[in-house]
Amino acid sequence: MPKTSLRDPARLLPAEPHVRAIAQELLERVVDAPIVSPHGHVPARWLSDDTQFSDPADLLIVHDHYVTRLLHAQGVPLEDLGVGGSPADPREAWRTLCSHWLAFSGTASAYWLAESLAQVFGIDETPSRDNADYLYDTIDTALRLPELRPRELFDRFNIDVLATTDDPMDTLEHHAALALDPTFSGRVIPTFRPDAYTDPEAPRFGERVATLIASEPGAATTFPGYLSALRSRRLHFKRHGAVSADHGVVEPFTCELDAAEAERLFQSALAGTLDAEGARVFRGHMLWQMAAMSVEDGLVMTIHAGVRRNHHTATFERFGPDTGHDIPIRTEYVDNLRPLLQSFGTAEGFHLVLFAIDETVYSRELAPLAGFYPSVYVGAPWWFLDAPDAMRRFREAVTETAGFYRTSGFIDDTRAYLSIPARHGVARRADASYLARLVAEGRLPLETAQRVIDDTVDSIPRKVFKL
Amino acid sequence: MPKTSLRDPARLLPAEPHVRAIAQELLERVVDAPIVSPHGHVPARWLSDDTQFSDPADLLIVHDHYVTRLLHAQGVPLEDLGVGGSPADPREAWRTLCSHWLAFSGTASAYWLAESLAQVFGIDETPSRDNADYLYDTIDTALRLPELRPRELFDRFNIDVLATTDDPMDTLEHHAALALDPTFSGRVIPTFRPDAYTDPEAPRFGERVATLIASEPGAATTFPGYLSALRSRRLHFKRHGAVSADHGVVEPFTCELDAAEAERLFQSALAGTLDAEGARVFRGHMLWQMAAMSVEDGLVMTIHAGVRRNHHTATFERFGPDTGHDIPIRTEYVDNLRPLLQSFGTAEGFHLVLFAIDETVYSRELAPLAGFYPSVYVGAPWWFLDAPDAMRRFREAVTETAGFYRTSGFIDDTRAYLSIPARHGVARRADASYLARLVAEGRLPLETAQRVIDDTVDSIPRKVFKL
Amino acid sequence: MPKTSLRDPARLLPAEPHVRAIAQELLERVVDAPIVSPHGHVPARWLSDDTQFSDPADLLIVHDHYVTRLLHAQGVPLEDLGVGGSPADPREAWRTLCSHWLAFSGTASAYWLAESLAQVFGIDETPSRDNADYLYDTIDTALRLPELRPRELFDRFNIDVLATTDDPMDTLEHHAALALDPTFSGRVIPTFRPDAYTDPEAPRFGERVATLIASEPGAATTFPGYLSALRSRRLHFKRHGAVSADHGVVEPFTCELDAAEAERLFQSALAGTLDAEGARVFRGHMLWQMAAMSVEDGLVMTIHAGVRRNHHTATFERFGPDTGHDIPIRTEYVDNLRPLLQSFGTAEGFHLVLFAIDETVYSRELAPLAGFYPSVYVGAPWWFLDAPDAMRRFREAVTETAGFYRTSGFIDDTRAYLSIPARHGVARRADASYLARLVAEGRLPLETAQRVIDDTVDSIPRKVFKL
Repeated sequence: MPKTSLRDPARLLPAEPHVRAIAQELLERVVDAPIVSPHGHVPARWLSDDTQFSDPADLLIVHDHYVTRLLHAQGVPLEDLGVGGSPADPREAWRTLCSHWLAFSGTASAYWLAESLAQVFGIDETPSRDNADYLYDTIDTALRLPELRPRELFDRFNIDVLATTDDPMDTLEHHAALALDPTFSGRVIPTFRPDAYTDPEAPRFGERVATLIASEPGAATTFPGYLSALRSRRLHFKRHGAVSADHGVVEPFTCELDAAEAERLFQSALAGTLDAEGARVFRGHMLWQMAAMSVEDGLVMTIHAGVRRNHHTATFERFGPDTGHDIPIRTEYVDNLRPLLQSFGTAEGFHLVLFAIDETVYSRELAPLAGFYPSVYVGAPWWFLDAPDAMRRFREAVTETAGFYRTSGFIDDTRAYLSIPARHGVARRADASYLARLVAEGRLPLETAQRVIDDTVDSIPRKVFKL
Repeated sequence: MPKTSLRDPARLLPAEPHVRAIAQELLERVVDAPIVSPHGHVPARWLSDDTQFSDPADLLIVHDHYVTRLLHAQGVPLEDLGVGGSPADPREAWRTLCSHWLAFSGTASAYWLAESLAQVFGIDETPSRDNADYLYDTIDTALRLPELRPRELFDRFNIDVLATTDDPMDTLEHHAALALDPTFSGRVIPTFRPDAYTDPEAPRFGERVATLIASEPGAATTFPGYLSALRSRRLHFKRHGAVSADHGVVEPFTCELDAAEAERLFQSALAGTLDAEGARVFRGHMLWQMAAMSVEDGLVMTIHAGVRRNHHTATFERFGPDTGHDIPIRTEYVDNLRPLLQSFGTAEGFHLVLFAIDETVYSRELAPLAGFYPSVYVGAPWWFLDAPDAMRRFREAVTETAGFYRTSGFIDDTRAYLSIPARHGVARRADASYLARLVAEGRLPLETAQRVIDDTVDSIPRKVFKL
Repeated sequence: MPKTSLRDPARLLPAEPHVRAIAQELLERVVDAPIVSPHGHVPARWLSDDTQFSDPADLLIVHDHYVTRLLHAQGVPLEDLGVGGSPADPREAWRTLCSHWLAFSGTASAYWLAESLAQVFGIDETPSRDNADYLYDTIDTALRLPELRPRELFDRFNIDVLATTDDPMDTLEHHAALALDPTFSGRVIPTFRPDAYTDPEAPRFGERVATLIASEPGAATTFPGYLSALRSRRLHFKRHGAVSADHGVVEPFTCELDAAEAERLFQSALAGTLDAEGARVFRGHMLWQMAAMSVEDGLVMTIHAGVRRNHHTATFERFGPDTGHDIPIRTEYVDNLRPLLQSFGTAEGFHLVLFAIDETVYSRELAPLAGFYPSVYVGAPWWFLDAPDAMRRFREAVTETAGFYRTSGFIDDTRAYLSIPARHGVARRADASYLARLVAEGRLPLETAQRVIDDTVDSIPRKVFKL
C-alpha cells in the first residue's frame, strides 16, 4: 500500500496509481512556481516595517477566524484566545488549540496549519496537549530569527505579486515605501475596497462620505461630487499599483438610475432617512457605478457576494467583525447582475470576477455567464470553499461549460501570512488531480493538460487581474 | 477482478484496492459496534408487548413508505399494498414487490431490503416474480419463531439505545413498562414531538391544545398556561428517559415576540381566526420557545425541516399521512434561525441538531453555523439523503469546514425495524470509505481516522444526544 | 500506465482498472445500439430535401451556440462567426475556432467536436491555428460526397427515431414527405411546441393566436375557441407521428382557473392589457390546460424549465435568439407543479417528463416527485448539464431515491446534426461508468447492471416517450 503522509510529495493527489502518476507529473511543473496572489488581506505595513511576529498565538490563532471559530464551536471562549483585543496568555491559547486538534481533523485549517508548521518551522508532529509547550517554544524561538521576518518569508515563499485590501482613504504610504525601497524587490499592490463608502447602512456612512468628499478639491456634497471623489481615490490607488477594486456585498444586485433619483437617494442616505429598500437600490446603483468606473480606469472589478456578516450580534459587539460568524447565504447572480452586464458586459477591456460562496451557482449561473460575456470570469472557490474537495467540485461544475480560461486563477484571500504557500499549494494539487483525471479518462491530451496547469498558476491570473 | 457481491464484506467500500484496504481496516473497528439510535419511529409497544410480526407484507412493505411510494410510481395502486389500512392480500403485495424488484435497482430501499433478508432470514437470492412465493413462505415461517420477536431482534441487532418519537400527551406507559421489566435490559427512550400542538394549521389544533392545558393542574387557557403545560409534558418525557425534543417544520423560521403579541396570536389561533402569516409567526415563536425550554430542561433540540407534506391531496385523503408523497423543498437556515441563535446560540449546555433534506445547505449554511455556534450540530443525512452516495456528499460538503465533531452521528429515523442494522451499516461503510480516502490522499493520519470512526458510532452520538 | 486518448475505446470510463473493465463490458452491450432521439432540434427539411451541408463553419460553428458563446467569451465578435445571418467568411470563422481550441479544453463542446471530426471525417488531429486550413479543406471536400448527405448519415449514425421540434402552425409537410418516401426508412417525428401561443408576453402573441384560431373551422375568439384550436393542432401533430408536446418555461408554475377567469385573462392578453402577474397566471393555467390535453390525447408532456432567455439585450436585438446568452436560473418544481399534479398526477397513461438545468433539484425535488407520481419522469441532464461529470452527478443524485426506471433516457436536444452520435455516446459511457461503480461496490449485481444499461438506451426512452 502506498504510504501517503501529510508530508508526502503526493499528498492531496488521487489514490488511484495511474491517475496519481499523471497528477504528479502535472504538479511537478508548477509546485515551485512563483506565487501570484491578486487578492488577500496581509497588511502592507508588515512588509514595509518588516515587523517581527510577536508570538505563536498572535501569528497562528488570534487573527485566523477559521481557527478561532472552530475552537469557539468546541466551547472555547473567544476571550481565552485573545480575539478582538482581549488580553489572553498566548501560551494558553496555543495549548488550547493543540488540545483540540482532533476537532480540526479533515478541515482545511488543519491542513494549512500543518503545512505552515512543516514548511516554516520544520515541525512534522501532530499537535496535541502533550507536545503543545514544546511546539510553542520551537515556534517562539524561531520567530526571533531574521529569516522569519515577513520580507525573508516573502522571498522564501517565492511570492511574485501580493495584493492587499485597503480603505479608499488609505494613504497607501506603506505601499509607497515598499515601492521606493531598494532593498525590497517584491511587488506589493493595494486593492480599492469601497464598501463602507457605498453602503448607506454601513457604520458611520455619512461621516465616511464627508471625509471622502472633503478629500476632493472643489467637490460639492452632491452625487456627482461623491462620484468624482471616488474616481480620484481610484486613481490614487492606480498610481500606487492597484490593479483591481473589490466589492463585498450581501447580494450582487445592480441597477441603473437617472441622475435625479441617484441624487435623491444620496441625500436621503446622508440625512439618515433612507429606508431599507432605498439603501438596497443605492447599493445596487453604486455597484453599477463602480463597474462604469472600472470600464473607464481599467481596474479589474471583483465581487465577493453572499455572506451574512456578524450573524451573532453579542459576539460582534464584544469582539468586533471577522470573528468567525459570517455565514454564507443563497445568492443569485443572473438577474441581479443583469443591469450591470447589459451596460458593460461587452465593454472593451472590462474584467469582472465573480466570487461565490454558494456553490450551487457554479454550474447554474457563473459558468454560463462567463461562457458568454467576455468581461466575466468565474472566481476561484473562496472562503469556506477553499479546500481540496470543494475545489474539485468547483472544477467539475465549471469546466464542462466554461473551460479553464474563463476562471480567475487562485486567490488566497488571507491575512494568515504563513499559510499563503499552503493555500496556493492546495489549489495546485487540486487542479493537478482534476486535470489528471481528465487525461486518464481520455478527455484531454496530456500536452493540453500540461499547458493548462502552467497557465492556471501564471498566465491566467496575470491576464484576469491585468498583472 | 475483485468480486464484490451484495453480501461481500467489502460492500459499499471504494473499488480502488488501496483505499478499500484502508476502508476495511477502519470498518472492522466499528462493524459490530453497538447501535446507538437516538432518533427513530419504532413504536415502543412492539417491544413492551414483544408483538409477533404478522406477515411479510406487514413487516416489509405496508408501513415502509420508501417501498410503497416507488411501487406506486410504477403504477401499483396503494390499496393493493394494504396502505392506510386498506384490506390487501399480503402474499399478493409481496408478489408485487418481488416482480417490481428491478425498479428498485440502485436505490437505498433495495439495499436495506436485501440486507434485512440476508441478515434476518438468511436469504441471499434476488427477489423476483419467480421466487416470490418461496421467499414469502420462508419469511412467514420464520416470523413465527421466538427469535424473530422484537426483543430477541433488539439483542441480536446489538441495539444499545433506541429512541422512539411520541405525542406530548402520550402516557409513555410502554416505555415505563420496559424500564420496569427485569427481563428486558435494553434502553428504549421516548422523544417529545410537539408539532401538532404548536402549529395552528395542524388538524384539530384547538382540540389538542385544550387537552394539553387540561392536563396541567390550574393552568388557564392563556399563552403562559399553554407554555406551562408544555413544560410539564417535557418533564414527563424526561422522567421517562427522554433526551431530546424533535421538531418537524416546513421552514425553520424563528422569532421572539413580546408577551402581549404572543397572547394575541395564541387566542386568535384557538379562535380559528389566525391568517397564514399569523400562523407562521406563531410557529416561529413556538420554535423559539421550545429552544428556551431546551436551555432550561436540557432536552436536546432537533429540527427536521424542509418537507412539503402530503403533496397529493387525494392520496392523503384516502390513505392518510406518510404515504410516500412528502416532497422536500428548498430550505433556508441562516436567517430563519438567527433569532433563536441570537438568544440561545451560545447558551450553556444547549444542543441544537439541524437535519436537512435540501443538501445545498450542507456546505453553505449548516457547516458554517456548526463551525461557530457551540450549540449547533449538523444532523446526519436524512430521509432521501440516507444512502451511500448522499452520505459521501454530506461528508465532503461538511468536513472541510466543520470537521467530524460538529456532526450528529447517524440516526436511522425509521419505523422499519428490520432495516435498523442495515441503515447503521450503510453509515459506517460510508464513513469508512470517506475516511479511507482522506488517509490515502495524505489528508489525515491513519491513527486519527481510527479515532474518528470509533467516535462517529459511539462518543459523538452519545455526546450530541446527551446519552 | 494505460494510455487513454480521445479515440481510446475506453474514453470517459473510470480510470480505476477494475471499474473500467466492468464499465467496458457494460458499454460493449450498447455502444452500437440504435439511437432513439425523442427530443431535438434538427430541421425535418434537412432530411426531406437531403440538403448538402454548405461549408464547415455553417455545419459546425454558426448554428451551435455552445461553440459561438465560448468564442464570444474569448472576445470574438459574433458577426465574425456568421451568427444571426451576419455575412462572414466561413474559412476565417473556422480558423478562429481552431486558434481558440485551448479555450474549449475540458468542455463538452470540445469532446463533441472532436468526436464528430473523428467519426465523420476521420480527423484525429487536435485543431490549432496551424492545421486550420488543412482541416477546413478536408471537411469541405468531404461535404460534397454523397455519404455526407443527411440521409446517409442518418443510416450511418444508426438513428432509429429522430424527433424534431415544431411550431404548432407548421404544416409538417417535410415530415409527411419523409413518411411517404419509399427511399427513406427512418422515423422522423414532429414535436408540438406551443410556447409562443401560450405566453402572452411572447413576441406577436396576439397575431399568432389569431392565426391559430383562424385555422380552426368555426372557432370563436374565446378561450374555449382557443383551446379547441390548440387541441386540433395537437391532433394534426399526432397524425404526423408526434408522440410528445414540449414546453419551455421560465418557471414551471401551474394553476387551475375557472372558465370566467380564464376568459378574462385571455381577452386581456389579446387586448395587450394584461400585466406581468396576469401573464404569469395565464401561462400557469395554460401549462395546466396542456396537461389536461395530454391526458386526453396521450401526447407525452415534457417541460424544459428554468432559463432566462436572451440575457444580453443588445446581442438579442442584433443577432436574434439562441445566440449563447440564455442563462439558467434557480427553479422550483414542488409547489409550482402541485396544481397540475393534484389534477393529473395519477391520471391513467399521463407522462410528464421534467427537465432541469438547476441541478440542485435532482435529489431534492425531481427524484422524490418521480418516486411517487406514476406520471412523472426525471428528464436526463440537459443543456449545460449534458456532459460526463454532470451526468454522473445526475445519476448519483437521482438513483438512490428513484432508481433508473423513473428517468427519461437520454435526449440530445440538438440541432448540431453531426454531434448526435457523440452526445448519445457520452450518455452511454457515463451510464456504464456509474453502473460499473455500483457493481464494483457490491451495490448492484452485474446481471442487473447489464439489464439496466440495455434498458436505458432502448426500452426506457421507448416507454417514457411512447415510441
